Amino acid sequence: MDYEKDGAEIYRRSFATIRAEADLSGLPDDVAGAVVRMIHACGMTDLPADVRFDPAVVAAGRAALAAGAPILCDAKMVASGVTRSRLPADNAVLCLLDDPRTAPLARDLGTTRSAAAVELWRDRIEGAVVAVGNAPTTLFHLLERLDAGWPKPAAIIGLPVGFIGAAESKAELARDPRGVPFLTLLGRRGGSAMAVAALNAIADPKE
Amino acid sequence: MDYEKDGAEIYRRSFATIRAEADLSGLPDDVAGAVVRMIHACGMTDLPADVRFDPAVVAAGRAALAAGAPILCDAKMVASGVTRSRLPADNAVLCLLDDPRTAPLARDLGTTRSAAAVELWRDRIEGAVVAVGNAPTTLFHLLERLDAGWPKPAAIIGLPVGFIGAAESKAELARDPRGVPFLTLLGRRGGSAMAVAALNAIADPKE
Repeated sequence: MDYEKDGAEIYRRSFATIRAEADLSGLPDDVAGAVVRMIHACGMTDLPADVRFDPAVVAAGRAALAAGAPILCDAKMVASGVTRSRLPADNAVLCLLDDPRTAPLARDLGTTRSAAAVELWRDRIEGAVVAVGNAPTTLFHLLERLDAGWPKPAAIIGLPVGFIGAAESKAELARDPRGVPFLTLLGRRGGSAMAVAALNAIADPKE
Repeated sequence: MDYEKDGAEIYRRSFATIRAEADLSGLPDDVAGAVVRMIHACGMTDLPADVRFDPAVVAAGRAALAAGAPILCDAKMVASGVTRSRLPADNAVLCLLDDPRTAPLARDLGTTRSAAAVELWRDRIEGAVVAVGNAPTTLFHLLERLDAGWPKPAAIIGLPVGFIGAAESKAELARDPRGVPFLTLLGRRGGSAMAVAALNAIADPKE
């Protein structure tokens, strides 16, 4: 079978195809870099129309990581996907969904484990990079805690996916990001691969 | 903020929405179950038009897992996403991308690490469940090895994503699955979350 086997060439041609097809106008260069990787992760060049962002989000996330900030993830797939060699400060990448405190907290709070795990971020949230690639309840719970006066993360990558609460939680983030630089995708689409792609772009500008 | 916080209810309403919106006619019940989970993982109800499958794929994969077969994955995100509690026989879930033999093999073979890792599947491929959620070269390389006479896996979940080789490798799988039950999605879409969703459905019929 005849197919491209050179990994570097596959990347180069992939990103060239994306930049030829996707309408990246209106995106700052660094945000466009993140969106190109998000497109690469899902195979759909029509994402830009649904992307919402603070122009400072990539710079803020990148500076935080350079200063050693942790990455707080809602799902193990997000945490496992971050390319460690792109991280500037051997940053911690944490998903606390399986922490033994999470299930009892979820019962006490009457919410999902994905939301309860946010409670365990409390001591690390200030200046952290948050990546939500799965659960709308994680994003909703975080916004509620910010409303309640929690310290602010450096950036929120808000990309929960699905049918119940995903579109609503992302619309709420875009409507009022509580002073936190953010990147999101309106609607049902999103997911762990897209969140990882955005994180990898923020961690390292190398395409 | 007013949003659904009951995890079981979120699942129930999500799957009900998908079954109301997606055209699952023409899919056997067990394949429809896998496609519903794939839709759940990406937020897009239009997948069925691009799904291609062997009607036996879910049954074959499920029987293999019940008999203890390993799951061979192309990407760490796929391996990390499989819900261990759904596996019927505490099945091994393997991604050999970071095996120390992979990079030298890739150089020797003049291909990607994702393709070279397939070589390390040789002793476990017979009767295994293969899940490709990232790299077209993994799927192409596996098809080449099947053409060269390798033993057959029990099922191939072929869902590489992207712009260079993804559509082509999946079209080739659908055109000639080499006698292996398969599930794929034509075109550029796919990805690790979708592959995980299909695996989780095959592992356990529970919706």
